[in-house]
Amino acid sequence: MKHTLVALMEDKPGVLNRVSSMFRRRNYNIESLTVGHSETQGISRMTIVVNGDVRVVDQVVRQLSKLVNVTHVLDVSDEPAVIRELALIKVTAAPGTRSEIMELTKVFRARVVDVGAASLTVEITGLEEKVNSLIGLLKPFGIEELARTGRVAMVRGGNGNSAKH
Amino acid sequence: MKHTLVALMEDKPGVLNRVSSMFRRRNYNIESLTVGHSETQGISRMTIVVNGDVRVVDQVVRQLSKLVNVTHVLDVSDEPAVIRELALIKVTAAPGTRSEIMELTKVFRARVVDVGAASLTVEITGLEEKVNSLIGLLKPFGIEELARTGRVAMVRGGNGNSAKH
Repeated sequence: MKHTLVALMEDKPGVLNRVSSMFRRRNYNIESLTVGHSETQGISRMTIVVNGDVRVVDQVVRQLSKLVNVTHVLDVSDEPAVIRELALIKVTAAPGTRSEIMELTKVFRARVVDVGAASLTVEITGLEEKVNSLIGLLKPFGIEELARTGRVAMVRGGNGNSAKH
Repeated sequence: MKHTLVALMEDKPGVLNRVSSMFRRRNYNIESLTVGHSETQGISRMTIVVNGDVRVVDQVVRQLSKLVNVTHVLDVSDEPAVIRELALIKVTAAPGTRSEIMELTKVFRARVVDVGAASLTVEITGLEEKVNSLIGLLKPFGIEELARTGRVAMVRGGNGNSAKH
């Protein structure tokens, strides 16, 4: 099963390397990894998607927590959370197929971010499943390039009255 | 100066670790790193933002290219490229301030993805500068949590007639 871990860590040289070494040494399988600034100056936020059973993921959380410069680790898999990724998809588009691709894009609330003579680039955000669906529908036109960020996740705020989108 | 590198690599255990070790060993400074699936089965696409002058970045490109399982490295900094990141921002929002925050969100073409009793979560995509501007405007309300993916980049397709968005 896929688990989504959020880790906060000091923004210092070598932290990423310590995290990736730990995964390598213990042979844990990283599905995706994303790291960027957090709300606190000097603290980075990493989202890691790990494949494995609960026992393995508990171990990963424990090992991560022990690393120098890692300040906080949370498994958000069982929490109500907003989970998103961003994908850029460059698809072959000639004048004859361009409008059809644009219509598909609209249905997915994706955005056309570049129009070339022979291709379109589309930006989509959402859960992997949504991104995968759009990719599946665009495949017959020809996917030239695909860049995905991997997951970011945030526990929903509130008291159970959260409106989900 | 910030440089954006795109690297394609085989999706095998240890590749991320080899990349991060190389950066660590040579003391290169990673600003952000994102890794996810590419358009080719078994090949991952990594976007790395590096701080440094041209000489340093040339070295990084050369070192990356030499790594086992890395198949392709491109510095897209001087190319016309679509560059995006995704951010989730959880901001304190009471009934009195909620609509003001929602209006700001609209101006940035961002999306409210969660509404709690005392907070809102907003999803925004764009260049860092755009994301930073929205964060700056939301700061006075209170930013509770921030998750950023770091850059993904794709060279624009076409023949110079590209419509930029």
